[in-house]
Amino acid sequence: MSVRIAGVASTRYGRHDASSARELFADAAADCLADATVPLADVDAVYAGNFMGELVEDQGHYGALLADYAGAPSRPAVRVESACASGGAAARLAAHAIEAGAADVVLVGGAEMMYPVDTPTITAALANAADDAYEESVGLTFPGIYAAMARRYLREHDAARDDLAAVTVKNHENGVSNPLAQFHRPVDADDVLDARPIATPLGLLDCCPISDGASALALVSDDYARERGLDAPITIAGSGQSGDALALQDRPALHRIPAAERAADEAYENADVDADAVDVAEVHDCFTIAEILAIEALGFYERGDGVRGAATGETAVDGRIPVNPSGGLLAKGHPVGATGVGQLVELAKQLDGSHPNQVADARVGVAHNVGGSGASAVVHVLRGA
Amino acid sequence: MSVRIAGVASTRYGRHDASSARELFADAAADCLADATVPLADVDAVYAGNFMGELVEDQGHYGALLADYAGAPSRPAVRVESACASGGAAARLAAHAIEAGAADVVLVGGAEMMYPVDTPTITAALANAADDAYEESVGLTFPGIYAAMARRYLREHDAARDDLAAVTVKNHENGVSNPLAQFHRPVDADDVLDARPIATPLGLLDCCPISDGASALALVSDDYARERGLDAPITIAGSGQSGDALALQDRPALHRIPAAERAADEAYENADVDADAVDVAEVHDCFTIAEILAIEALGFYERGDGVRGAATGETAVDGRIPVNPSGGLLAKGHPVGATGVGQLVELAKQLDGSHPNQVADARVGVAHNVGGSGASAVVHVLRGA
Repeated sequence: MSVRIAGVASTRYGRHDASSARELFADAAADCLADATVPLADVDAVYAGNFMGELVEDQGHYGALLADYAGAPSRPAVRVESACASGGAAARLAAHAIEAGAADVVLVGGAEMMYPVDTPTITAALANAADDAYEESVGLTFPGIYAAMARRYLREHDAARDDLAAVTVKNHENGVSNPLAQFHRPVDADDVLDARPIATPLGLLDCCPISDGASALALVSDDYARERGLDAPITIAGSGQSGDALALQDRPALHRIPAAERAADEAYENADVDADAVDVAEVHDCFTIAEILAIEALGFYERGDGVRGAATGETAVDGRIPVNPSGGLLAKGHPVGATGVGQLVELAKQLDGSHPNQVADARVGVAHNVGGSGASAVVHVLRGA
Repeated sequence: MSVRIAGVASTRYGRHDASSARELFADAAADCLADATVPLADVDAVYAGNFMGELVEDQGHYGALLADYAGAPSRPAVRVESACASGGAAARLAAHAIEAGAADVVLVGGAEMMYPVDTPTITAALANAADDAYEESVGLTFPGIYAAMARRYLREHDAARDDLAAVTVKNHENGVSNPLAQFHRPVDADDVLDARPIATPLGLLDCCPISDGASALALVSDDYARERGLDAPITIAGSGQSGDALALQDRPALHRIPAAERAADEAYENADVDADAVDVAEVHDCFTIAEILAIEALGFYERGDGVRGAATGETAVDGRIPVNPSGGLLAKGHPVGATGVGQLVELAKQLDGSHPNQVADARVGVAHNVGGSGASAVVHVLRGA
């Protein structure tokens, strides 16, 4: 039994002053069902990723709300929250519902508004993904958390801040040609190194932006695709998820994310592939260091070698293992609850050959979605025709 | 393929000044696994219901946090949020994971802290289950929403405020002998009618309290139960879930909850039983009127006849169809994210004959869990030996 991605859609990520999460999701959902050629009446359930609705829009109960605004108010709907991995987790649970025979068509969505509140407020809201007792309440926020991880990585592996900058340069270059990306402006290494310091060694361009946005996937069962004669060759070939302590202090090492390593191992085993088989990856580069840790967790590089990825061009669109041809979180944006769904949207386009930064002959794609500093990680392996 | 409830546990619901949600859940989880005789190492995943962590404890990312505090940090963990139906939805999704073959043992939990903030703050936090655009932002909170539903019901069915009071009297009587209940004090009809008005026609004793608490279930696959030789005869025989518009103004009628009717129909069909087969029910009595709407949605009474349930004694522990022998939300308490899980804990005790308010010969139990004013509803049918 496999689960197919019959259709995908995303709003542009960025600033949407005139919209709310429900409106952005309604747009993405309608476009997604049109792309899938699946009628709204066939949607059996709605699974929605959202992280900070209560804190930004005074709004919880997002599953039912988004189902209603997608035009499917009576369908069973849930909000799935695993911090920044909410979207990936929602897709994984939706696939379980199909595999369990509880649904034939699930509309998986993610939506987040971040611009309506000011930067200190959104930074505090994001810190709800960290451990309040040991991190948030003593003033640690995510730039500081990832800065600590970056410092340890650079020291352990004899690397320097300059080595991180190549990730930003690559991802912004990719963002230029992705119409869904928040930024369409190339940057060079000097721009990255000269940017305003945020938390040493990370500057402003080492950090993803805040973003509003929504993404949607139509997942369908094999049987439904066959009976309806859908052209839906892309399957979720495997998925893995793992967790860890929220607080960085409870981890054995700061310079790796074991939950992502476990999730990748499980997803590869599940899909019966190994890292070498992957043609394209969308990874969780909330900070430059995070992309480096991601490509090590996914097995594309040995530990300590991930810094070579962007610097050597190996992770460029035409490189050995293209990473974040979408622009990634750094350039495409990071509307938290939508991000994991958006990664699958990007990969589906790669696998059907319609991506603006198309990777040649892409058959196997991997999405890597992390929550917090690595207390949640979800990895999906998609396979094309 | 069926899913079995191998063990259950709950903290007492009420005020837990010295604890946090993670600590309460850790207690419930440990007791639950001990009850199940399932080792922690066998837990494949953790699904947790929580509604207001961000607003009460500055804490999101509850799936991973609760998995960590249960002693299972590396396991895939998600928080499931469907407002007050979060716990029921978490159990339903966990059962899907087992049916999909993605897990053999899932620890399902729910935890919520409500006392750490003051009453106006928690009332505003609860209002995140309503529609911010049309309800919360204009000042409507849940006592007002259910009061509107109650007024319409009383007018449509020629009933009076006195008819609601019997629900509180019954549920508080049941709470007296349930050690897990928040209140252990019997009340009479005059107490209910003389209580401080909250939102006409509802007085203080027509409303459930705010509560801290946590509950846990160990769900296991048939195969796991057989291979491990577990004594786990209780199965989830069926479940149903449906949704609706969040805003009351978008519903065709104020005096019924169609999502609960649809969820009940699906759960009965799924379990191949009808309402007559049900021996005991735990229903979502967040307000007295809600129990009346629940027993109509579940098919125990025709529309307009639900007011007779408590008044005639038919829904008492020794009545025709015992409803809320636990004390229900009114007397047992309502730590929001835990409530739906707690209902299943109570029913499991009924079906294994160990409940303090034991219903004679209970074989089939129904749990009815509602989010908001009915935008989410989850119904489970459990079957005992």
